[in-house]
Amino acid sequence: MHQTCTKQVIRWNQSKPTSVEDELVVEEPLEIRVGEQSLIVVMRTPGHDFELAAGFLYTESLIKSVDDIEIIAYCDDANEKTNGHGKGLETMQNIVNVRLIEELDIEEQQGWQRNFHANASCGLCGKMTIESVKHQVNPLDSVFHLNQTVFYKLNDRLRASQSVFEKTGGLHAAGLFDENGELLIVREDIGRHNAVDKVIGQALLAEMLPLDKHILMVSGRASFEIVQKALFARIPIVVAVSAASTLAVDLAEEGNLTLIGFMRGERMAVYSHPERILSV
Amino acid sequence: MHQTCTKQVIRWNQSKPTSVEDELVVEEPLEIRVGEQSLIVVMRTPGHDFELAAGFLYTESLIKSVDDIEIIAYCDDANEKTNGHGKGLETMQNIVNVRLIEELDIEEQQGWQRNFHANASCGLCGKMTIESVKHQVNPLDSVFHLNQTVFYKLNDRLRASQSVFEKTGGLHAAGLFDENGELLIVREDIGRHNAVDKVIGQALLAEMLPLDKHILMVSGRASFEIVQKALFARIPIVVAVSAASTLAVDLAEEGNLTLIGFMRGERMAVYSHPERILSV
Repeated sequence: MHQTCTKQVIRWNQSKPTSVEDELVVEEPLEIRVGEQSLIVVMRTPGHDFELAAGFLYTESLIKSVDDIEIIAYCDDANEKTNGHGKGLETMQNIVNVRLIEELDIEEQQGWQRNFHANASCGLCGKMTIESVKHQVNPLDSVFHLNQTVFYKLNDRLRASQSVFEKTGGLHAAGLFDENGELLIVREDIGRHNAVDKVIGQALLAEMLPLDKHILMVSGRASFEIVQKALFARIPIVVAVSAASTLAVDLAEEGNLTLIGFMRGERMAVYSHPERILSV
Repeated sequence: MHQTCTKQVIRWNQSKPTSVEDELVVEEPLEIRVGEQSLIVVMRTPGHDFELAAGFLYTESLIKSVDDIEIIAYCDDANEKTNGHGKGLETMQNIVNVRLIEELDIEEQQGWQRNFHANASCGLCGKMTIESVKHQVNPLDSVFHLNQTVFYKLNDRLRASQSVFEKTGGLHAAGLFDENGELLIVREDIGRHNAVDKVIGQALLAEMLPLDKHILMVSGRASFEIVQKALFARIPIVVAVSAASTLAVDLAEEGNLTLIGFMRGERMAVYSHPERILSV
């Protein structure tokens, strides 16, 4: 389970090619199963796969709490090991099975259908998507406030802990901070949603939810789905290094979530609910 | 169909909050239907939706050529307009219907199942994913060569044409260049795959395929799926501004595609098939 791998590349630098070793980010598919039934395959950077599976199920609203999970394990179906297809450890570690306490009828999960669109109905427009999320997720009622100076520390701290990014420049990061701006969990992944799912999954498995005195920071943009995931975990503040989309802002507005973008040095843009940020 | 929208935000700059107008990237769901049957919903930036739908179907191997398409149109089901749900133009422009010459049995499409995972089998590991692509897409046989100096122009040209990025910092771009480094098509979208699908879809609708003397450039990273889409369109060279993943390099290697990353100024890293780049 390596996050990076070394590869020989030709580097051109002002007209001169030289062969050098380079570190690349590992990208591998992960199949998530629930009760041996295949649910989805995500392209992800290996590592923290159980957290990814747990976080994914939680932020897709397929489970309501950590207590719904009986066990998470890599697939070790005896047939798969012995059926002569030559599947080894590597394959098995790309399949995670989540056994739940109660059986899950995936067809009956509104949230699942909404996100995975196998039978998306005509009503699936921007407004209705937002409304269906509102029905599932009550707006936050957190009266949590933070001094603006707390925010100015986040970027450096997240960056300092991005071990793989420094080597490869190829990963997104998500970090969970407490109210003092201390970094509690950081995860890196080639997929931005995966990084967030790994953070929330870790917090879920560690029974830290709800995260109602916490900040979620992402290294890239803030999209609708990032805000949606934060709302599920009851995180009141989301900070992005880059821009936010219109739909992310709309959802943050309605969900009573403070959404911040362009967090750089002592500058930031507050898109929604600025009342959580104190200037003294 | 606006790509950006103006929003009032609070900008903090060294401890001082001021309220300013900011341009945000529009993110809206687009439902793609084939023959009135819902296929998928993608979160996208509005604009060039027909190209997105066409490019998506093509790079997912659901159609083989532009001739498979009879018509592409926004959904105008009379029931939807009049059933009292109050759906107006905006909703309708978030649903695109593609009518094909021959009916498509989605359940029978290998590539579709592979990518959408509704019933993913156990065989869905990294190796088998790559192999299933190889079965569908023959490796490129292009003997296309380019002088290294051509590559050094691409970045500036792509950037210069990213009208929305300049305003918002919130979009990915994909550009299609000819063998002289001239930019033929550029598309911006909040989703990197969408930007590529829009470019390839535009080329498909303009009957420019196969793109075997072209370069595809993406503003961000090169992932497995970007390389996969390029292979479907027979594009021999993919250039990314940022890093490439291991799986992207593996696929490029096997598909005989030249994959370049970290394209900045007169520097670049060539991950696969450097023989297409000439130094004089």
